[in-house]
Amino acid sequence: MNQNYIKADNWSIIEEGFEKGRVKSSESLFSIGNGAMGQRANFEEMYTGETFQGSYVAGVYYPDKTRVGWWKNGYPEYFAKVLNAPNWIGIGVSVNGEVLDLNRCKKVSNFRRELNMQEGWYKRTFTVTLLNGLEVQAEILRFLSLDLDELGAISYNLKVLNTDAEITFEPYLDSGITNEDSNWDDKFWNTTNISFTDNRAFISAHTMKTNFETCTFMQAYLDYQGEAVSGGVGAETETTVSFTFKQKVKAGETITLTKFGGYTVSRNHKSGHLVDAANRVLDKASALGFVELLEKQKKAWNNIWQMSDITIEGDVKAQQGIRFNIFQLNQTYLGTDSRLNIGPKGFTGEKYGGSTYWDTEAYCLPFYMTTKDDTVARKLLKYRYNHLEKAIENAKKLGFSNGAALYPMVTMNGEECHNEWEITFEEIHRNGAIAFAIYNYYRYTSDYSYIPEMGLEVLIGISRFWHQRVNFSKEKGKYVMLGVTGPNEYENNVNNNWYTNYLAKWCINYTLEQLGKVKDGYSEDYSRIIGKTKLTDFECEHWKEVADNLYFPFSEKQQVYLQQDGFLDKEMIKVVDLPKTERPINQKWSWDRILRSPYIKQADVLQGFYLFEDHFSKEELERHYDFYEPFTVHESSLSPCVHSIQAAKLGRMQQAYRFYLRTSRLDLDDYNKEVEEGLHITSMAGTWMSIVEGFGGMRVLEDKLSFTPQIPSQWETYSFKVNFRNRIIKVVVTQDKTSFELSGTNEMSIRVNEERITLLPGKIVIV
Amino acid sequence: MNQNYIKADNWSIIEEGFEKGRVKSSESLFSIGNGAMGQRANFEEMYTGETFQGSYVAGVYYPDKTRVGWWKNGYPEYFAKVLNAPNWIGIGVSVNGEVLDLNRCKKVSNFRRELNMQEGWYKRTFTVTLLNGLEVQAEILRFLSLDLDELGAISYNLKVLNTDAEITFEPYLDSGITNEDSNWDDKFWNTTNISFTDNRAFISAHTMKTNFETCTFMQAYLDYQGEAVSGGVGAETETTVSFTFKQKVKAGETITLTKFGGYTVSRNHKSGHLVDAANRVLDKASALGFVELLEKQKKAWNNIWQMSDITIEGDVKAQQGIRFNIFQLNQTYLGTDSRLNIGPKGFTGEKYGGSTYWDTEAYCLPFYMTTKDDTVARKLLKYRYNHLEKAIENAKKLGFSNGAALYPMVTMNGEECHNEWEITFEEIHRNGAIAFAIYNYYRYTSDYSYIPEMGLEVLIGISRFWHQRVNFSKEKGKYVMLGVTGPNEYENNVNNNWYTNYLAKWCINYTLEQLGKVKDGYSEDYSRIIGKTKLTDFECEHWKEVADNLYFPFSEKQQVYLQQDGFLDKEMIKVVDLPKTERPINQKWSWDRILRSPYIKQADVLQGFYLFEDHFSKEELERHYDFYEPFTVHESSLSPCVHSIQAAKLGRMQQAYRFYLRTSRLDLDDYNKEVEEGLHITSMAGTWMSIVEGFGGMRVLEDKLSFTPQIPSQWETYSFKVNFRNRIIKVVVTQDKTSFELSGTNEMSIRVNEERITLLPGKIVIV
Repeated sequence: MNQNYIKADNWSIIEEGFEKGRVKSSESLFSIGNGAMGQRANFEEMYTGETFQGSYVAGVYYPDKTRVGWWKNGYPEYFAKVLNAPNWIGIGVSVNGEVLDLNRCKKVSNFRRELNMQEGWYKRTFTVTLLNGLEVQAEILRFLSLDLDELGAISYNLKVLNTDAEITFEPYLDSGITNEDSNWDDKFWNTTNISFTDNRAFISAHTMKTNFETCTFMQAYLDYQGEAVSGGVGAETETTVSFTFKQKVKAGETITLTKFGGYTVSRNHKSGHLVDAANRVLDKASALGFVELLEKQKKAWNNIWQMSDITIEGDVKAQQGIRFNIFQLNQTYLGTDSRLNIGPKGFTGEKYGGSTYWDTEAYCLPFYMTTKDDTVARKLLKYRYNHLEKAIENAKKLGFSNGAALYPMVTMNGEECHNEWEITFEEIHRNGAIAFAIYNYYRYTSDYSYIPEMGLEVLIGISRFWHQRVNFSKEKGKYVMLGVTGPNEYENNVNNNWYTNYLAKWCINYTLEQLGKVKDGYSEDYSRIIGKTKLTDFECEHWKEVADNLYFPFSEKQQVYLQQDGFLDKEMIKVVDLPKTERPINQKWSWDRILRSPYIKQADVLQGFYLFEDHFSKEELERHYDFYEPFTVHESSLSPCVHSIQAAKLGRMQQAYRFYLRTSRLDLDDYNKEVEEGLHITSMAGTWMSIVEGFGGMRVLEDKLSFTPQIPSQWETYSFKVNFRNRIIKVVVTQDKTSFELSGTNEMSIRVNEERITLLPGKIVIV
Repeated sequence: MNQNYIKADNWSIIEEGFEKGRVKSSESLFSIGNGAMGQRANFEEMYTGETFQGSYVAGVYYPDKTRVGWWKNGYPEYFAKVLNAPNWIGIGVSVNGEVLDLNRCKKVSNFRRELNMQEGWYKRTFTVTLLNGLEVQAEILRFLSLDLDELGAISYNLKVLNTDAEITFEPYLDSGITNEDSNWDDKFWNTTNISFTDNRAFISAHTMKTNFETCTFMQAYLDYQGEAVSGGVGAETETTVSFTFKQKVKAGETITLTKFGGYTVSRNHKSGHLVDAANRVLDKASALGFVELLEKQKKAWNNIWQMSDITIEGDVKAQQGIRFNIFQLNQTYLGTDSRLNIGPKGFTGEKYGGSTYWDTEAYCLPFYMTTKDDTVARKLLKYRYNHLEKAIENAKKLGFSNGAALYPMVTMNGEECHNEWEITFEEIHRNGAIAFAIYNYYRYTSDYSYIPEMGLEVLIGISRFWHQRVNFSKEKGKYVMLGVTGPNEYENNVNNNWYTNYLAKWCINYTLEQLGKVKDGYSEDYSRIIGKTKLTDFECEHWKEVADNLYFPFSEKQQVYLQQDGFLDKEMIKVVDLPKTERPINQKWSWDRILRSPYIKQADVLQGFYLFEDHFSKEELERHYDFYEPFTVHESSLSPCVHSIQAAKLGRMQQAYRFYLRTSRLDLDDYNKEVEEGLHITSMAGTWMSIVEGFGGMRVLEDKLSFTPQIPSQWETYSFKVNFRNRIIKVVVTQDKTSFELSGTNEMSIRVNEERITLLPGKIVIV
């Protein structure tokens, strides 16, 4: 593994040189997206080598029939799969009849890719000697517009170096595409209509079963010597439509094919009007032209960076890493649509059916709360509110009643997309993360309105679930929660996972508290909610009984909460004492061996200490950290960030920095040799957390923003911006000081290293 | 469900009337087998209705690629699947050009099937009015020869009732068959040659991947008015070969097609000589003729029944039930080949890949030890010895070393065929059952030679596994066994399953004891084994340390061993207090709910009390029985027999009888509505155990055969025979007395109700 493959650069991701074996990985790394659609960095022209084709439209999925070895009652029959959508980027190219194909040619040189994150575009340049001996130079620039989020644009520039030649361009659309990941080789798309005009073409197709209607469209024009070349000849097959342009060009002169393309979908337009909508998009695009669209793109990305950028000086690779993470999060989700969410692979691959994990609430929400305005985080919460009925149905399937809600482990439309019993049925702490996000949103934004309007109903459904999920143990004289899987998925079907029990207790108490607040302050909402949920005082008392008498495994000897019942019966050999050859254990060990070992995949008890930091003393944190971290193998990309934040809090900056490094360039340096499948989008938010919450020490304490800034010794300075309750603060940390700068008009009081400081607008305060 | 569908009869299984919806179920119930091959009761003539075609050749399997939802390290890549083999029974029939097809005709009447268990044949009779109005009467008799175990024979007799007519018979072979149960729709058979002579035909085919070569063969001749009709015309296609006979017959006169057919396989003959071998079988068969072959069949079955019959008077359905079970066990396995074993569906269906479960050792071995001579049980043990290397490889795949052996959960050739982590990796008590069978074989037969020759190596491999599978818990100061699944599969991944721990401790101690005995008495074997296994005293001391310090969960309050750690934390509602609508829980409840419930699928702690009855007092048994049985849902067909035996031991005959009834007619009355998939062969041995060990109270105690006979009040009398160390004793139990009759020449001492009794040959002793 060459971990220096990607060139270090502050603002761009750069690849130099052409390696066929890296094509699929680079297709992931150079993916582009605009929150509404995404495109892997597939070549426009023909490529007969190994490739993983992917073009994705947000919210367009297919319910693939579940495949399991052994069926368990309760498994979903179908689950939503991320769909590869019809190809809009394709451009066939040939020179004097010889097809341009980087897999079948004499030589490729000067191959270079650049993903310019600052401006939001992707460029590919290369020189190729074709099989017929002609030397051709290409520069292709592509972007997905933030302004017109149904539009992508390509400028394909070609030069024949050694002779005059006839060039043929054949821009096309193709709905005869497949998914790599299909359980039963179902056909996912049905093409219903293909049409073309002078220079525009349209393929109407709908997804099978879900019947999402889509119009894939394009417009193409050719320029040579400063003039438009007329006369692309249209043609269609059963699943394709294309224009053929032929033009003789002089040696060394550039010819440019511009292609606009993209999708209009029935989620956003009336059925039957998708071609009209596509025409309107193309009207706008051609009125502006490629150059103007690109200028707007740069401005739009500049706006995003204004608020979300983290600068790091003294370490280019760290700078590149964090910007790549922030860039990808913004490519994936921009908070414009509460029906969408943040898939673990974003728009960069198919892996993992469905799109929404508890990652959204536990890892992504803080990023979006801090770098966008409140409406974005609120949309993420609303997404779950909209799925409440489905979560109640889901719980019903598993035998729960009375409006108990179990949110799915992973979902697209609210239905469960996961089918491993130990996860699907047992990794129920996800419910807690969804409840915690409601609390976290209010704590951060002070927008209470979400709770009476929507959040309280979610909390009631979740509390009902916890209440039914426990049982009273006569043996212990306490309520116990049997048969669960915690965040540490290297334990399955355990009893009394401390983290899950703690969340359950907190959920119930928080719900009861909010019931009181809503009753007092929002009586209309209260009546509506009580009417709808039929919640009684009697039921609340029962909840309380459970919360007050829930069991928590604790070791008197070690003075730590135990991850679960019986944890100390394991063979407690620390990770550091394991032979290197045995790791990663998820590749080297059989599943049963992993399960009976003490090794922890990602923070579990410590995840609880992260969420509820203010419930525990620093000494307690330190004791639990020192007990659990040595058994933690961090084999989930979501593990290091929590530990980095806690190490920083404990003043262990070297260790905090080591954890930070483990995820900041996870994909760029392809640590796990799997980047070809797509990027780890949600863990990128964890990297952001490591800096802002870990090094910066940002918290909300007693209703105030608080910082305890530290800086890794490897860096000169770093900076980030925070939007807290519509007040924007820029924080710059150097090796010897931290400066705070407040925008806006009103002063604001914050805490830094436990001391209160007042920030005045426009004035830099140095600590 | 009509539980009286099968007519009550002492010796035959009889169906009367034709119901299309029952065809698949009856195809299972009327299956025939001879230990080497088996045949579902599919119709010979064309049938276009719903049918499940099945013809099986012992030991011929296909390694189907594993299919799972989520891969876990350690899963087998492929597993052996029971294969549907080429069709040898087919006979096309038409009358005046109208095809005989019971699915497409005007009327079927007098439809009757009979499976004569006493004589080992299957007969079908019916009258059919064809679409052309002709009324045809048929009687078809079929059997699989015990004497020539590669041969089946069919006599197909037809009469046209209302007119003279031309009848066409087209006996054929067909290798273009498929499995119902195929993961990836692989093609399982490759046909390599088809040939025919005057009246014989052959299809050579081999299985893909495993390359089992098979010659499917037939010979057919037609008789009319006492004379052979000459001139069957041969024809072949890519996967079929047939003869066409045409004959004009007078109204009311019978015409008979006789067909011999079957398989010769490369497991038993040299590759390339299968057609020769088939010709030899057919030579023998035609020399004898159908009538003589049938006479021999009757004699052969008579011999089997001589030893294995259980008679019951006063209850025809009970009599029919137990004979059906004994008949099926003998159809499945006759102990002629140590490469074969007893599949859970025998030769009656495809379900469950592989053929050998721990059912063989735990349930079937006692039946075969008691009703056959020693060589049969020894072959079953040898089967596992032959798989020892594979069991060591299997353990290695899971991270064990140094010759530790883990026998697969289910297998055909020694490799694991199961892929659910909680079973494949964790239901490891199967290893204990295999060790126990070695002990049980010696206890019963007094043939010690198996242990030095083979058994000790198996015991060493298994003890090594247990030794490595535990770890020392500092918390408990004991060795613990984490992450296992006991016989009660309604618990997964539990810690310290009492049954598994008890078996492990016993295994180690028993192995150490046998090491001593072999060292003392069989020094050559000892040297060979020590040389091969590299076992050291040091290692044995470590084993002993584990066995002496193994942890057993125990409740002081309840004074019972606990099924596993934390069992008493469950919500202990007894089965009797569950609403009827919630049962069976494996259909009504989601998997997580089952797991966290206290409900027991089949005997778990009580399975230990069954195997090691002599380690516990009757009071202890009673206490544990009264504690666990009320939580047992008996949702495995292997559950009631153990409880029946224990209830009988505790003098609770009404309950014992109720348990007995739950399995004795499980398939005949199709309790679970799944008989169409095949029969529950291995649980049939449990029914036998319920009578002989339960009601008869047969045990080996202090090296003597012992009985404590009881009889259900519903029966007048029952009898069974026992072969104990080559001494045959007939036991007859009535409501007021029991008689014992010893065959042979020497006297023998047994115990009855704890008193010693001497049996003299030929003299009946009444107690």
